[in-house]
Amino acid sequence: MSDSKATSTTQNKTSAHVTIKDAFWSKRIDLVLTQMLPFQWRVLNDAEPDVPKSGAIQNFKIAAGEATGEFYGMVFQDTDLHKWLEAAAYALELTQDPELKAHADEAWRLIAKAQMDDGYVDTYFQIKAPEYRWTSLQDNHELYTAGHLIEAGVAYHQATGSQIAFDVITKLADLLVKRFLTDGTAGVPGHPEIELALMRLYHLTGKDAYYRLARHFVLSRGQKPSYFEAETADRREKKIPNWLDIAYNHGEVDMEEPVDLAYYVASKPLIDQNIAEGHAVRAGYLYAGLADVAAASQDDAIKAAALRLWHNLADTQMYVTGGIGSTNMCEGFTHEYDLPNESNYCETCAGISLILFARRLQMFSSDSQFADVIERDLYNNTLGSMSMDATRFYYRNELERWGAKIARAGRPGWHACACCPPNLARLILSLNRYLYHEVGATHYVDQFIGSTYRSDGVAWSMSSTMPESGCVKLMVEAWAAGHELAVRIPAWSQRFRLELNGRPLHAGIDFVLSQGYALVLEELKSGDELELKLDMAVKTVHVNSRVKYDAGKVALMRGPLVYCAEEADNHIDDFWNVVVPADAVWSENAHPTFPDVRCLTGTVRYAASTTPALYSYDEPEIRSIPLTLVPFYTRYNRSLGAMQVYFRQDSRLR
Amino acid sequence: MSDSKATSTTQNKTSAHVTIKDAFWSKRIDLVLTQMLPFQWRVLNDAEPDVPKSGAIQNFKIAAGEATGEFYGMVFQDTDLHKWLEAAAYALELTQDPELKAHADEAWRLIAKAQMDDGYVDTYFQIKAPEYRWTSLQDNHELYTAGHLIEAGVAYHQATGSQIAFDVITKLADLLVKRFLTDGTAGVPGHPEIELALMRLYHLTGKDAYYRLARHFVLSRGQKPSYFEAETADRREKKIPNWLDIAYNHGEVDMEEPVDLAYYVASKPLIDQNIAEGHAVRAGYLYAGLADVAAASQDDAIKAAALRLWHNLADTQMYVTGGIGSTNMCEGFTHEYDLPNESNYCETCAGISLILFARRLQMFSSDSQFADVIERDLYNNTLGSMSMDATRFYYRNELERWGAKIARAGRPGWHACACCPPNLARLILSLNRYLYHEVGATHYVDQFIGSTYRSDGVAWSMSSTMPESGCVKLMVEAWAAGHELAVRIPAWSQRFRLELNGRPLHAGIDFVLSQGYALVLEELKSGDELELKLDMAVKTVHVNSRVKYDAGKVALMRGPLVYCAEEADNHIDDFWNVVVPADAVWSENAHPTFPDVRCLTGTVRYAASTTPALYSYDEPEIRSIPLTLVPFYTRYNRSLGAMQVYFRQDSRLR
Repeated sequence: MSDSKATSTTQNKTSAHVTIKDAFWSKRIDLVLTQMLPFQWRVLNDAEPDVPKSGAIQNFKIAAGEATGEFYGMVFQDTDLHKWLEAAAYALELTQDPELKAHADEAWRLIAKAQMDDGYVDTYFQIKAPEYRWTSLQDNHELYTAGHLIEAGVAYHQATGSQIAFDVITKLADLLVKRFLTDGTAGVPGHPEIELALMRLYHLTGKDAYYRLARHFVLSRGQKPSYFEAETADRREKKIPNWLDIAYNHGEVDMEEPVDLAYYVASKPLIDQNIAEGHAVRAGYLYAGLADVAAASQDDAIKAAALRLWHNLADTQMYVTGGIGSTNMCEGFTHEYDLPNESNYCETCAGISLILFARRLQMFSSDSQFADVIERDLYNNTLGSMSMDATRFYYRNELERWGAKIARAGRPGWHACACCPPNLARLILSLNRYLYHEVGATHYVDQFIGSTYRSDGVAWSMSSTMPESGCVKLMVEAWAAGHELAVRIPAWSQRFRLELNGRPLHAGIDFVLSQGYALVLEELKSGDELELKLDMAVKTVHVNSRVKYDAGKVALMRGPLVYCAEEADNHIDDFWNVVVPADAVWSENAHPTFPDVRCLTGTVRYAASTTPALYSYDEPEIRSIPLTLVPFYTRYNRSLGAMQVYFRQDSRLR
Repeated sequence: MSDSKATSTTQNKTSAHVTIKDAFWSKRIDLVLTQMLPFQWRVLNDAEPDVPKSGAIQNFKIAAGEATGEFYGMVFQDTDLHKWLEAAAYALELTQDPELKAHADEAWRLIAKAQMDDGYVDTYFQIKAPEYRWTSLQDNHELYTAGHLIEAGVAYHQATGSQIAFDVITKLADLLVKRFLTDGTAGVPGHPEIELALMRLYHLTGKDAYYRLARHFVLSRGQKPSYFEAETADRREKKIPNWLDIAYNHGEVDMEEPVDLAYYVASKPLIDQNIAEGHAVRAGYLYAGLADVAAASQDDAIKAAALRLWHNLADTQMYVTGGIGSTNMCEGFTHEYDLPNESNYCETCAGISLILFARRLQMFSSDSQFADVIERDLYNNTLGSMSMDATRFYYRNELERWGAKIARAGRPGWHACACCPPNLARLILSLNRYLYHEVGATHYVDQFIGSTYRSDGVAWSMSSTMPESGCVKLMVEAWAAGHELAVRIPAWSQRFRLELNGRPLHAGIDFVLSQGYALVLEELKSGDELELKLDMAVKTVHVNSRVKYDAGKVALMRGPLVYCAEEADNHIDDFWNVVVPADAVWSENAHPTFPDVRCLTGTVRYAASTTPALYSYDEPEIRSIPLTLVPFYTRYNRSLGAMQVYFRQDSRLR
C-alpha cells in the first residue's frame, strides 16, 4: 500500500439525480417525514412524554451557555441529534418544510455556538468531563460523535448550502487533522464512524488531508504495539476514569479488565484480518470506511482486505434476514457459521452498517452480490425493525421468539440508548442514493424501487410492484448515444423475463449476464419501455450445513422477503413442532390487517407428543395443520406471541 | 398445617447396614478414598500446587488464634472443609485409615477451638467482617455454612462417636434455635442447607427444637412481607455491605438492584409454589429440607407441596441426564420445558441436590420414580461430572459442545468456587445409603449396586453387572418370617425377567407390580437366589414436544446410560448433521480406552451442503456414515472435541 493520494479515475458514481416515487416506499418515506422526524425532534427537546428523557438539545444549550445544568445521557448522546440532522438534511432534499428547516437551522446555530474556539464540540466533555477530553479514544466515543456530526454537516450543506454547518464540521475536522495527522498524536477511535465521515467530507471538499486522516485511522488500527492497550495502561497509571468507569463504577478506574482488542475490531491490522470480529456496528462502520479508503486509493491490498472481510461477513456470519451480530454479549460477532436464531442480536444499526459497507463496495465493484445483500437487509432486518406505522423500533431483531421471551417482544417507542431510530430515519430518507450506480457510461439498476433517474443525458422513470410482486418497468425518457443499461437480476430470481417494448429479450443475443446484471445490448431511445418480470414463486431456502442451528430446517422466501409464522395467524405457539413438507404448496392471500401484504398459507405436518411424559419411547403423533406465514418485516404489528422463521423440513431420507 | 410435633410412625427407614461391593462402583469409591480425599485435604491445606488456593484450613487456624493473617476465599469457603469432613466421616465407616482419621480429628479440634463462646463459627465473619455477622442472611451464606458444618458433625459423630464434633454442632445449632426460634429474630437463609442439616441433627438427637427450627425456615420462607426485602432495605439504610458488595463493589452497598425473590426460591411460600424456580442448588437443598419436614410432620399440605415441586422438576425441568438448571444466568431454572442443550448449566451440585430431594421423598412414598431419577442422575449427570480417574471435575454439565466452546470443554482439577468436588466425594462415599429402603416389614431394592444388606433378621448379598449389563442377583442369607421383598423395575426396563432359584416368577402370581416395584409374593428363605434380568436393549428416547430444543430429535439410551457422540470416535465435528434412522441397528463394542465400557456403533445418515453458499435452494446431500456413541459419563476423558447427546431422527412423515 503506497500512501498515495486518492484517485477517482475508475470510481463508480452516484451523482445521478434520483427521486423515489414508489407504492411501497413512498408511504414509508412519508411516515418518516411526517411522523418520525417531528417525533424525534420532540424527543431530542424532551418534549415527548412517555419516552426516556433525551437531553440532547439541552446538553447543547448548556454547552452554548444558553442554559445551565448537568449533562444528561450517554457519552454519545450528541449523536442522536447529529443523526437526526443528517436525516433532516435528506428530508429537506425531498420537501420544503419550513418548520423542519427552522428546527435544523436552530440546532446548527446551537452547535456552532457550543463549538469551542479550537473546533472541539462534544457536550459530554464540554459540560461533564472537560479534563478527560481525548483520554479514552477507546471508550469515550469522541471520534464517533465527531463522525456523526461531520456526516450530518456534509448532508446538510449538500441539501441546503448551509455555511454554518460547513464551518462547524470543517473546523472540527481540521482540529482532528491537526491532532492526529499534523501533530502526529497517536490514536484510533474505539467506535469507528469518523473514517467514513472524513471520506464524505473529503469527497465534498476535495481536501486531501481528510482522506489521509481517514486512511490513517483505517490502516493504523490493530497495529502492534496496541494503541488501546497503551492508552488503557496510561489511564490506569494516571487514574483517569473513562465514561464507563464514571457511569457504572462510581468513577473508579477499572484496573483489571484486559482490553478485548477483538471487540474493538483491532486484534490485528484490518489489512491482515480475515474474519469479521467484535462489536457489529463498530465493525460495519469501520468496514465502510475501509471500502471508502480502498475506492479512493485504488490500492489493491486495501481493496482485497475489504472484499475478504465482506465475504467473511456475507458468506459466513449474516442471517437470512440480512442481520448481523450473533450475540448480545458483545452486540456482535462470535465465530463463523454461528447463527443462533433466538439469542442473536442483529442490531438495527448493525444491519444499517452492512448496507453502508455493501454500497461502498458497489462503488468499486459492479457485482450484484452487494445490491442483493442490501435488498435482503433492507426488506427484512432493517424494514422489520420499524413498526408498520414507523412509530416504534427494535434495537434487536431475533429470528424467533417463544415462551417467556414473548412478553418482551414488542417494539419500544424510543430507547435510552437511542442509536437505532434516528439511524433508520437517515437511511430511509437517503434511500434514493441506493437505487442506481454508474460506471463510465453504464447505468446500473441496483434496486427495484419506483423512481425517476437523471444523469448525463440519460433519464428514465421506473415503476415497480416490489416487494409484493415482481413487475418492474423502466420508461426511457432520454438516452444519450453510447450509454448502456445494466439491470440487476436478483440471486433469488434465476428465472426472469426481460422485454423491450413488449418484445422478449434473449440472453446472449439481446443482453448478456455479467456479474449478476443483465447488460442490455440494444441501443435504447426515448420512449422505450423495458420490462423486467421477476420470479416471485415461494422458495425454500437451505442454510449451509456448517450452521448448527438450521440443520434440517428451511426458511421460506418470496422475492426478497423472508417469511415467518406468527401466533396471531395460527392456533399453535410451538412452531418447532411444525414440519414443512418438501412439496408443500403455498397459496397467497391478503394479510388480515395489512391488505397490501401477501400471506402464504399451506398444509404442513405437526408432530406432538401423545403423552405428558417428559421422556418416553413413544414417537410423536403426526397430523396435518394449516400454517400461515407473513413477511418477517410485518411481525409483531398486531399482538405478541410466538414467531419463527426456520421450520423443520421432512428429510426425504427414505 | 398444624405446628405439631414431628412423628415418625409411618416414616420409611434406612437403618439397614449396607456395604457396597460392586464391580463398577467399588473402584470409584476406592478412587475417592485413595485419590480424592487426600488430594482435597492437600488443597484445603494449600499444599497442592497448580490449583486455585483454598485457604480453608488456614482460615480456621487464624480464627482459632493459631495463625495470623487475612481471611482468604469466598464467604462460604468454610464449607469446602465441612463437605470434606462429611465425606471423611463416610470414608471412616468404610476404612480404618488412621491418617485420614488424624486429619479429620485435627480439623474438628481446630473448628472447636475457633468456635466462639456463644456457639458461632464461620471464619469469614470471625476474621474479616465480625461487625457484619447476620446482617445479610440473604447473601452472606452463614446459615448455609452452618448447615454444612452440622451435616459434617452428624456424619462424623455417627461414624466415629466423636464428642467434639457433636459438641460443636449442637452448640451451633442451639445458638440458631435461640436466635431464630426462642428469641424470635426474623430470618431465613438466602442459600438453603440448614433445613436438611437441622433435620439430620434432629434425627440424631431427637431434640424437637431442631425440627421446629427447620420447619420454621421451610415454612416462613417466601411469606409477605418479604424477609429478604426488609433485610435489604435495612442494610441499605444502615449502609451495611454484604459480601458481594465487599468482594465485587469495593464495599459500596448496592442501592438499586431489586431483590430477585425467585432466585432465592422465595417468590411465595413453598406451600403455595407450583413451579421450581431460582438457583437450582438452593432450590434442591430447600426441597430436600421440605421433604424432611414433610416426612417428620406427616402434614399432608407439606407433603403435597413437596410432591408438587418434585413433579414440576422431574416432569418439566429435568434433563435426560438427570441434570437440572437450564441456564448459567442464575445457575438455575428458567421456565417449564426450557431445556437448551448447549447453554444449560446442570451444575454438579444441583444434580446432587436432586438426589438428596428424591431420596427423601422415597422415605415417605415408595414409588419407583424417585429411585428412577436417582439412577438417571447418578449414572449420567453426577458420574459424568468426574473424570474416569476421579481427579478432575465439571461444575457445569452441558449436553452438547461444538465450535469455539470446545476449547473450554475439559474438566478442571479444582475450582475457585469449589463446591462441587467435595460434594461428589460425600455423595459417592455415602452411596450405600441410597440402595435400599424399608417400609414396615417390606425391604425395597432401589438401586442395583453390588452390596450386602443386613436388617431386622433379613440379610442378603447382591451382585450386579450394572450399568454395562443388566444381571442382578440377590442371594438370601437370612429371612425372618413375615418380611417381604420389593425389587424396583426401572422405567427403562418394561421387559424384565425375575427368577427364583432358576424358576421364572410370573406377574400376578409370584409377584405383583406396585408403584414400580415387583413385590415378591413367595416366602423367601436363606439360600434362595433371586435373579433379575433387565432389558439392556438400546432405546430411542423422545422428549416431550413442549421442549423446543429436542423437537425432531432423539437420545439413545441403554439401561440407565445416556449415550453421546464424541469427536474422538468419529470423523466429523458437526453432529447436528447426523440423522439417526428410526430403524437404526446398534452394535455393542468395547470402548477403545476403557474396555469395560460399551460403545454403540451404527449406520446413520449425514446431511451436508454441496455448496459453500450460506443460503441456497439446494437440498443437502445425504450419505450413510458410521456413528459411534459412548456413555455420556465417559465423555471428554480422551481429547476435547465436539460432543452431542440429541440427534435428529428421520421423521417418517412420508
